[in-house]
Amino acid sequence: MSQIKVGLIGFGTVGAGMVEVLSNNRELIEDRVGAEIVLKKIADLDIDSDRGVKIDRRILTTDAMEIVNDPEIDVVVELIGGLDQAREYIVMSMERGKHVVTANKALIAKCGKLLFETAERYGVDIAFEASVAGGIPIIRALREGLASNQINTVLAILNGTSNYILTRMTAEGLPFDEALTIAKKLGYAEVDPTLDIDGSDAAHKLTIIVSLVFGRPFNYEDVYREGIDRVSPEDIRFAGEFGYCLKLLAIARKIGDHIEARVHPAFVPLDHILANVNEAYNAVYLEGDFGGPTLFYGLGAGRRPTGSAVASDLMDIARNHVKGISRRVSPLSFARPPAKELSVRPIDQVSSDYYFRFSAVDRPGVLSKISGILGANNISIASVIQKRRETHGSVPVVMLTHEAMERDVRKSLDLIDKLDVVTEKTVPYRVERKTGI
Amino acid sequence: MSQIKVGLIGFGTVGAGMVEVLSNNRELIEDRVGAEIVLKKIADLDIDSDRGVKIDRRILTTDAMEIVNDPEIDVVVELIGGLDQAREYIVMSMERGKHVVTANKALIAKCGKLLFETAERYGVDIAFEASVAGGIPIIRALREGLASNQINTVLAILNGTSNYILTRMTAEGLPFDEALTIAKKLGYAEVDPTLDIDGSDAAHKLTIIVSLVFGRPFNYEDVYREGIDRVSPEDIRFAGEFGYCLKLLAIARKIGDHIEARVHPAFVPLDHILANVNEAYNAVYLEGDFGGPTLFYGLGAGRRPTGSAVASDLMDIARNHVKGISRRVSPLSFARPPAKELSVRPIDQVSSDYYFRFSAVDRPGVLSKISGILGANNISIASVIQKRRETHGSVPVVMLTHEAMERDVRKSLDLIDKLDVVTEKTVPYRVERKTGI
Repeated sequence: MSQIKVGLIGFGTVGAGMVEVLSNNRELIEDRVGAEIVLKKIADLDIDSDRGVKIDRRILTTDAMEIVNDPEIDVVVELIGGLDQAREYIVMSMERGKHVVTANKALIAKCGKLLFETAERYGVDIAFEASVAGGIPIIRALREGLASNQINTVLAILNGTSNYILTRMTAEGLPFDEALTIAKKLGYAEVDPTLDIDGSDAAHKLTIIVSLVFGRPFNYEDVYREGIDRVSPEDIRFAGEFGYCLKLLAIARKIGDHIEARVHPAFVPLDHILANVNEAYNAVYLEGDFGGPTLFYGLGAGRRPTGSAVASDLMDIARNHVKGISRRVSPLSFARPPAKELSVRPIDQVSSDYYFRFSAVDRPGVLSKISGILGANNISIASVIQKRRETHGSVPVVMLTHEAMERDVRKSLDLIDKLDVVTEKTVPYRVERKTGI
Repeated sequence: MSQIKVGLIGFGTVGAGMVEVLSNNRELIEDRVGAEIVLKKIADLDIDSDRGVKIDRRILTTDAMEIVNDPEIDVVVELIGGLDQAREYIVMSMERGKHVVTANKALIAKCGKLLFETAERYGVDIAFEASVAGGIPIIRALREGLASNQINTVLAILNGTSNYILTRMTAEGLPFDEALTIAKKLGYAEVDPTLDIDGSDAAHKLTIIVSLVFGRPFNYEDVYREGIDRVSPEDIRFAGEFGYCLKLLAIARKIGDHIEARVHPAFVPLDHILANVNEAYNAVYLEGDFGGPTLFYGLGAGRRPTGSAVASDLMDIARNHVKGISRRVSPLSFARPPAKELSVRPIDQVSSDYYFRFSAVDRPGVLSKISGILGANNISIASVIQKRRETHGSVPVVMLTHEAMERDVRKSLDLIDKLDVVTEKTVPYRVERKTGI
């Protein structure tokens, strides 16, 4: 049986998961692939800690260059994370004719263009299934399963930490800080959860998805981002009253020759299949021009799911190896970039339905003043709830609008927040329209 | 740009969908694949009807053998359905070195072994993404995306017609016959809906999934089948009271060295993600040993989704063609069959939680008689609802049990139905346990 030799750089959580899959499912993997996947070397600065997996200690090294420079190694798995060092190891490995597997979403999102061009120059593969949505094979679905479709809409829950926090806030009515504390205690949030809760992590993943959908490396900086740290249980409750829940959504749409890409908390209709994606689960909802709506759901993180995604990438490369080929599918799954380049629609030109929660003094004429400003700015109201629920001497007025442009919304809220009857800054959320799916 | 030449046998709904995808998305497909997919010939007995797609009429023929015998054609797409004729065209095409794409689930389920062996003998590929769950790329997920996992549990909604009917019965409280009539009117059910509602169609698809999961053609006859034609709105209502809905589920499980495979109506917990798969949608829920739970959701049928699945298969073969290879992944995705053959667990040895609806006279001691028989047969009761709701002079007693063996259930119900206090045949349903997912 032929062999493919692997070097692993970064023996952390995901690395240990990969080692465990390759060892526990060795027979299954060999039966499927018809080749042996041999883990030849593992490099990590820490080669003493117990990772809970059985390995021959002689394959451990603290020097990643031993892997990069080993002519016998066919594939380098990069799992150290971070940008500069990881990029250097990957580029050097490719220059030496090695294929690369990585779970590094930030790196693919920010340096994808360089990495894909380098891979092309040296005729090697770079696989990154584990970089988006852990155990969900969404990269393959976009590259192959749905390949005959133009995907026009992506709605995704790509950050398990945020989804866990929002689930707790929704189910138990907790404020953000308390839900975050629980998430940290249970290991769903890291000690510094910034990248998870400010939307950056989801934006990295959305960048990768958009690149795959449209066949060109998408610019990470062009993804508009808002996090969940200002979400209040009050708005979640109002969402429920209108028939919605609140999720941190990663959204991409093709509208004519424009792409919009954004990550922010959004109202999702309770009868949408995404509304039932709770706890730390991830899901990607796509609309293809022929396949119609599809949803891919599963665990977006964790040692075992992410480790198994890395292992599936290794199997893919091994299958190529058995046939003596590489680059059967290019990294973004386009043999040549599409002729037409799409332009990015900036956030102020994006249209959406909106939810507003105004804090106003309880006095006649308030609603008329607010709605007057909205109307003058092309924003039409779909429904209103006004309750005699005093909070700090003011009442909340909440409403859903019909489709409005972000630019008009910002202008209106600026004016409304200056009204003397408005006591606090208005809270807006974008609303994904009822779809009936 | 290199070309791959395709012959289509069967120009029906799915065939027209495929032609439409290939034509509408020609540029996208060529950009991705780096080759031109050329539809060289279409064979159908009817070459006059308008299928709503633009084609050069000169490529139409009534003689399928023109395609089978055309040395220029690289891939034959079989979309005529049925068994004997379809099998013959496929085998003859393979004998002539042609790859095959088919959407024929009955054929793959019943003649898979022969077809896969023939493909191996002649070194060609046979692709059948469109045979299971239309627009959902589940075959690829099993063959590649989740390939490093042993899948231990499959719970799937694989028949859109049944799911549509059950959705109507649940939402509007309709009896089966009325819901079926609506389904026929709206085109969700065929004039003869037997294969859809008796569970055969779902069993075909489950056979294919099980074959892919375990690497050997599974015997269709070993799938236990019950349909939805005896489902009543009353049991759906009681399901709701217990926190469940009723779905036609296709279930496969690996338990030790045994496989169980069955299609029947079952109670699904309302908080399970499958409970939200409604209307004519399909979904496949899998549990992998490393990846954990995943769900794949989308449209299981229809011209455009199924046509796009066929087109994606063609792109897969074209990508091989560009690289000058074939059989990169074998039909069941195993380079060699796994050493250990699993045995089928017959239905009477399968364990499950159960729902029973007894029809009993409203008299003291009835529940004690029933529960006495259950207890004597190792069936323990989890919860009971007994209401003074007279129907035909008797009251329904409904209960959920803890895990029980089918054999014991059948024996108990035989005894219970002979009791003089029991007025009608007891209605049992299997219950998928609460999972919290």
